[in-house]
Formats: sequence, C-alpha cells, structure tokens
Amino acid sequence: MFEATTEVRVRYAETDQMNVVYHGNYAQYFEVGRAEAIRKLGFTYKSMEAMGIIMPIVEWSAKFIRPAHYDELLTVKTILKELPVDHRIEFFQEVYNEKGKLLTSGKVVLYFLQADTREKTTMPRELMEVMATYFN
Amino acid sequence: MFEATTEVRVRYAETDQMNVVYHGNYAQYFEVGRAEAIRKLGFTYKSMEAMGIIMPIVEWSAKFIRPAHYDELLTVKTILKELPVDHRIEFFQEVYNEKGKLLTSGKVVLYFLQADTREKTTMPRELMEVMATYFN
Amino acid sequence: MFEATTEVRVRYAETDQMNVVYHGNYAQYFEVGRAEAIRKLGFTYKSMEAMGIIMPIVEWSAKFIRPAHYDELLTVKTILKELPVDHRIEFFQEVYNEKGKLLTSGKVVLYFLQADTREKTTMPRELMEVMATYFN
Amino acid sequence: MFEATTEVRVRYAETDQMNVVYHGNYAQYFEVGRAEAIRKLGFTYKSMEAMGIIMPIVEWSAKFIRPAHYDELLTVKTILKELPVDHRIEFFQEVYNEKGKLLTSGKVVLYFLQADTREKTTMPRELMEVMATYFN
Repeated sequence: MFEATTEVRVRYAETDQMNVVYHGNYAQYFEVGRAEAIRKLGFTYKSMEAMGIIMPIVEWSAKFIRPAHYDELLTVKTILKELPVDHRIEFFQEVYNEKGKLLTSGKVVLYFLQADTREKTTMPRELMEVMATYFN
Repeated sequence: MFEATTEVRVRYAETDQMNVVYHGNYAQYFEVGRAEAIRKLGFTYKSMEAMGIIMPIVEWSAKFIRPAHYDELLTVKTILKELPVDHRIEFFQEVYNEKGKLLTSGKVVLYFLQADTREKTTMPRELMEVMATYFN
Repeated sequence: MFEATTEVRVRYAETDQMNVVYHGNYAQYFEVGRAEAIRKLGFTYKSMEAMGIIMPIVEWSAKFIRPAHYDELLTVKTILKELPVDHRIEFFQEVYNEKGKLLTSGKVVLYFLQADTREKTTMPRELMEVMATYFN
Repeated sequence: MFEATTEVRVRYAETDQMNVVYHGNYAQYFEVGRAEAIRKLGFTYKSMEAMGIIMPIVEWSAKFIRPAHYDELLTVKTILKELPVDHRIEFFQEVYNEKGKLLTSGKVVLYFLQADTREKTTMPRELMEVMATYFN
C-alpha cells in the first residue's frame, strides 16, 4: 500500500453561505493530495503530461461526513491500495481537520491516456518501479 | 418520478489545460440542475433557507463518460425516482451535450436540516404536496 | 458604441460565508458577458480560437458597490466604447441586480494574440466589419 | 511599510484551456497572500470575523504581465504602504514565479465593517498596534 499526506488551508473563496466548504471544492483538495503523492515518489503529474500522458478522472465519489470551515488546515490523505495493472488507477482519499476528525472520504478513478491519440495506455514504467517498492 | 432539465453554457473558467471541463465543476452543473428542478415546482432553494431549512450534500458521485468543451450548451437532467420519506433525498443527474450524447451521470444525496440546530428534519410539506403529484 | 446585455443566475458555489458572491467570481460573470456580446455579432470566442487567435486578459479592474446574493438573476452589460485600432481591446462591464441597481462596474483589457507564436495581432477583419456598423 | 510573502502551488483546476492560470483565480492567490500577511502579525482574518468585523473587497485591479502555469510554486507578496486611518485599507499585491519573474501586480481595497450592522468601522486596535511597529 502506498500512502501520502499533505496539507491544504481552506480559502475564503472555497466557503459558501452555509459557512462551510462547498462540496465541489473537495475535487481540488483531492487533486492536491494526488499531486503531492506523486511528487513524494520523485515524479510530478506535470512531468507525466510532458511525457505525453494525461490522466482524466473517470469516476469521482465522496461522502461528506463533517463540514470544513474557513482557515482550517486540512490534512488530505491519498491511498493506493493496489498497483494498477492496466490503464486504470484507483485512489482512496480522506480529508481530516486539525483535530484529526474525518471530514470527507472518497474514491477517484483515473485512466492513463496518450495525450495525442487519447488511447488507453499504462502507468509509465519509471513511476511503476518506484511505486512497486511500496507493495509486497 | 419527477424530472426536470435545464441548460448550462460552459465557461472558459471551467475548462482546464486538458481542454475539457474540470471534473470538479460538474458539482456546480448538478447544483444548477437541482435549483431549476425545485423552481419548476414553484419553490426555490433560497426560499427553503428562508424557511430555516438547509440541505447540505452528504454524498456525491459521478462517472465521467465523455468530456464537455468550452462554449458547449449542456443539458442537465435532474431525476427524483422516489419521494423522500425522511431527512434524506436522492437525486440522479445527467449531463448531455448538444448532440444528445451523455457526458456525465451521477447521484447526489442531501439531508434536510434545520438551519439553527442542524438537526434532521423532513421536506417542507408544501413542497412535498407539489412533488407528490408527480408520483402517481 | 457597441453594447450587449446578458443574464447570469448566481450559483450557491459562488457565494462565500459573508452571504454574498465572492469578488473573484465576477471575473466569470464578466467573461460570460463578453462571450454573449461576441455571439450577438454572429461570432463566438470559440471560433476565434479555431481561427488561431487567443485573447488573454492583460488588465482587470472592478469596483464592488453593492453585493450580489444567491439565486439573484444578474444582468451583465458589456460596452465597447471605441473600436480597437491595434492588438488591444477594452471592455467596460457592469453588473445589475433584478431591481436595476448597479452592483459592480469594471474594465477589462485583452490582447489579440496569434495562438501559435503568441505574437500580437489585430481583431479578425470579419468581426471588425460587423462591429464597425455600431460605430458612427 | 509592512510586507509579507507566502507561497501558492498552482492547481490543475486553476488552469484553463489556454494552458495558463485563469485570470479570475488571482483573486484567490491575493486572498491567500493577505490572510498569511495578517497571520504573520499574530492575528487571523477568521479571528476578526469572530470579533464581529468583516472586510469586504470594494476595489480590485491587476495587470497580468506573464502567465502562471500548472504546478508552479508562486510567491505572493502583500504590501501595506500606509497604515489605514479610517475604514479603508489598501493592499498592493504581486505574484512571482519560481524564477523570480513578476507575473501579476495588483491593488485591493477593503473596508472594515461591523458584521451585524454593516456600518463602517476601523481596524481593531490590537491589530493596529502590531502593524504600527512596522511603520517607523
């Protein structure tokens, strides 16, 4: 299993008139979590795009258990339970507040596609090799 | 079954560098769809908040089948398959492009809460009565 | 002078915990106003990009006079006081609420650039010809 | 003069199909800059709201000189040139990329208002005392 955590501070722009973070903004928090998870492995999503691979989101789901508030320093946990075997990769993601309470828990499925043809491809081998060290 | 459709034009701000609508922005398209569905019944979500009821999202999920592009006029379909029997209401939502192709399909679960106490409540009776006319 | 108006309904996502539209979201309302202004002339910004011209924003300013609220149907006015003579075009934009009160007033400057080289260019002649009919 | 800097990493959601950060998102970068500037003084904007003071933006302007790209680590500089003497406070803000190039430069004017009455007020005395130490 591969796991990474990162922090995100809630912006005023991200709140709504219910005084909490608008649910749609968790897509960005999850995105930040995945970006930092890949960075931890010595890669960046940016470098993958430079290699001609894009990773569109094909499924996104979340349960909103407790609200997040303005200026809170959230912790985003990104978990890969299994190594991808084809064009599909599945991340589990969780958001916690400063007291360690679970606010949101979700799952995001992405595909590896070739940017030019939009054809399915697999995780770049260099990244796979580093990730594999976390499994077994 | 109650069903409503509305249109949303894709903004430049909503695209990302993959040249498609960023997945997180579908939360807003779905929101617009639900707001217009309630308006069709002669109510507004705004009036519900004025009555002291808020409806936080507790679950949100979607499959992204085809991408949406800048300036496309999307159709958002909002479907209520069952009348809510308690504090929970479940909407099915779909987004189509101008050619009638299904782009995104999702499900959103909301709770009826009293704004002041955040205690669970039920759909306002006036709204229930109008909605019930759609269910045989 | 060329002038166009369009309507935008305030989304819940666009409010913040001050119970008003977050100031940064007016950039999107202004964008919608400009897009509809160009459409009124029989063109679209999308078609301009297809012609190889992009129009980045180089200056943006606004005064926020009165707040906009959730679900209000705003009117966005887009005004071109002078025909562009080179790569620069300047729009004046205003946002009104349903009572006709001025909420926000601003100015946006864009450049015409060639998408491939990012070199300055001028407004496409076809668009200029249509626009010119509104002046003098 | 009081000056503070903070860093912001560009999110994918913040880019648009021109492959750069959408101009409207600089409102959020500036917001983060001001929030961290106040935090540096031992206060938070959140604590000001808790004290019953809100600070709506009444003017916002920026020049966009160079574009910001996905995943860049931007530096936001927030400058107060003069201590506020009444309900009005004026910040100068700049965004730099990792190479130290100036991308965006702007000015933001906010008012101090009492949250309940929306009447003009002044900067809380405790904050003024700390800020004053930066002005000779």
